[in-house]
Amino acid sequence: MPETNRVYRLAHRPEGTPTHDAFELAEEPVPDPGPGEALVRTLYLSVDPYMRDRMRAGESYAEPWAVGDALRGAVVGEVVASNGAGVDAGDVVTGELEWADYATAPGTELTRVDPDVAPLSTRLGVLGMPGLTAYFGTREVAQPSAGETFVVTGAAGAVGSVAGQLAKLQGARVVGFAGSDEKVAFVEDELGFDACINYETTDDYGAALDEAAPDGVDAYFDNVGGEITDAVFTRLNVDASVAVCGQISMYNDEEVPVGPRKLGHLIQTRATVEGFLVSDFEPRFEQAAKRLGRWVGAGDVAYRETVTEGLENAPDAFLGLFEGANIGKQLVQVAEREGGQ
Amino acid sequence: MPETNRVYRLAHRPEGTPTHDAFELAEEPVPDPGPGEALVRTLYLSVDPYMRDRMRAGESYAEPWAVGDALRGAVVGEVVASNGAGVDAGDVVTGELEWADYATAPGTELTRVDPDVAPLSTRLGVLGMPGLTAYFGTREVAQPSAGETFVVTGAAGAVGSVAGQLAKLQGARVVGFAGSDEKVAFVEDELGFDACINYETTDDYGAALDEAAPDGVDAYFDNVGGEITDAVFTRLNVDASVAVCGQISMYNDEEVPVGPRKLGHLIQTRATVEGFLVSDFEPRFEQAAKRLGRWVGAGDVAYRETVTEGLENAPDAFLGLFEGANIGKQLVQVAEREGGQ
Repeated sequence: MPETNRVYRLAHRPEGTPTHDAFELAEEPVPDPGPGEALVRTLYLSVDPYMRDRMRAGESYAEPWAVGDALRGAVVGEVVASNGAGVDAGDVVTGELEWADYATAPGTELTRVDPDVAPLSTRLGVLGMPGLTAYFGTREVAQPSAGETFVVTGAAGAVGSVAGQLAKLQGARVVGFAGSDEKVAFVEDELGFDACINYETTDDYGAALDEAAPDGVDAYFDNVGGEITDAVFTRLNVDASVAVCGQISMYNDEEVPVGPRKLGHLIQTRATVEGFLVSDFEPRFEQAAKRLGRWVGAGDVAYRETVTEGLENAPDAFLGLFEGANIGKQLVQVAEREGGQ
Repeated sequence: MPETNRVYRLAHRPEGTPTHDAFELAEEPVPDPGPGEALVRTLYLSVDPYMRDRMRAGESYAEPWAVGDALRGAVVGEVVASNGAGVDAGDVVTGELEWADYATAPGTELTRVDPDVAPLSTRLGVLGMPGLTAYFGTREVAQPSAGETFVVTGAAGAVGSVAGQLAKLQGARVVGFAGSDEKVAFVEDELGFDACINYETTDDYGAALDEAAPDGVDAYFDNVGGEITDAVFTRLNVDASVAVCGQISMYNDEEVPVGPRKLGHLIQTRATVEGFLVSDFEPRFEQAAKRLGRWVGAGDVAYRETVTEGLENAPDAFLGLFEGANIGKQLVQVAEREGGQ
């Protein structure tokens, strides 16, 4: 085991779109696990849009990082040493850990993973938080029914790609928005959406929706916000449901001076707009993950991952999220598992 | 009975804020009631913000009026003649009737009113559609609980004034927004709201809210929309509910290019925004009206009316709604009841 550990720390709070100088790769000694802790070697690291919010000083559902703090996120790793943590060296675990080669964590915050059930990377994607977010947001909040029209933004992303497929499983007509022809092809051909609109090459989202969703919109899963959401709002049907999951188009805006306009459309439609956090559904994670695993195994839910190699490239992977660089779940592979994979 | 009837007809579809020339006062013969119909003499006529929408060609929950159509609205009137309509001459009734001195309607669309229970005008206000809208929007959609903070816009208006008082009855801290010092005094002193913000003299709605609602906003009843709603959105608490009842600040806008921004606040709060129409609660109108009548009788719900005299002044009364001219329910008194009142 090397003596040096690399850890990404927040160098300063970015204003607007972050750049590389917000991330400082510190070289530090590999930490020793304290009592009840384990030392974990990072295999895969997840980068997610919500992390932008933690770089801000303001209030959010996730506590803001302090300048100098290690960045943190969902990790799949291998236990190197355990100091009474209830896991054994060689175990594969997931948890929220530092962006680092090695990190310590209390055993109570680590979850053991069976490495033979599914590729380890899926624990951060289709079988991890993004898949669960899609599951609860679609089935519990947006709630499309058979024959209804379900629209999802970020359709080629980690959450949207799963959300649309789950809506298909419920019998809905599914329309996505994605940002390139390659993504549109993936969404339509591999994920089986009924239609996907390339928002980068479409001027008139409303007209595109009228064609792709001629019967209006019954359920809307929003990861993006902004002008696409404006267009969807004017096409909501009576009793439509809007699940607000993310607003990535605005995460880098320092100020959004104008707020919720066009709410008149909610009156005539008696539609509901509801924000949600996957963490509120935690008691049901196990059941949901089992179902997702079954659907993935049966080929009912397809997934794709974009894997960036090397911890040093984690900021690239993160910043790419805001440029739509990824198809499916964006991961960083930090190391190979000793046993392979 | 005179032979000439006066009827207001839509002269043209207004663009932006309507002016008087959109209303044409036609002189016509008093109509004869057809089989099953009654002839009703108008006593009080209601003017309501939603009528602006019926002047537009576009889709809405209320069918648009055609140019040349008689304008229609809630009326309290006296039956002059019945052609097998199931009501008798002298009966007092309510229904949706023309803006006219006399109008016919099928008996099935008229509801008999006991003139001795409450002043007739209240059937168009606190005991009519506005009161019912406040009742269901507050109790079924916004749902403030004891100790929570309830905010309502249009607080001195027909709906908002009742909504805030119902929230008080539920034990909430109630904060209103209104557009003049006189309205603020009415809301705080006569209606008993905990605070009321004069939005015409306040530059920073957010700061005013921080003072009036220091614990944030748990339930929001929105009649107005726009910048006040922007400020409320950023102060929603976890699990907050927003009832969208009206958006009067935007009814005269031909186009609202920007839509629902700041939805990110719904994610961290898991808040719900829901549009509603009082008509969806029709099976429960009788129970609700009884309760409202009891509270009004007991002095738990106060109300005020702004009464404009004369059918010829109905457009003035309607247009005044968009300038905030009214305190409480805006009515037009068209005639006195033969029996008095």
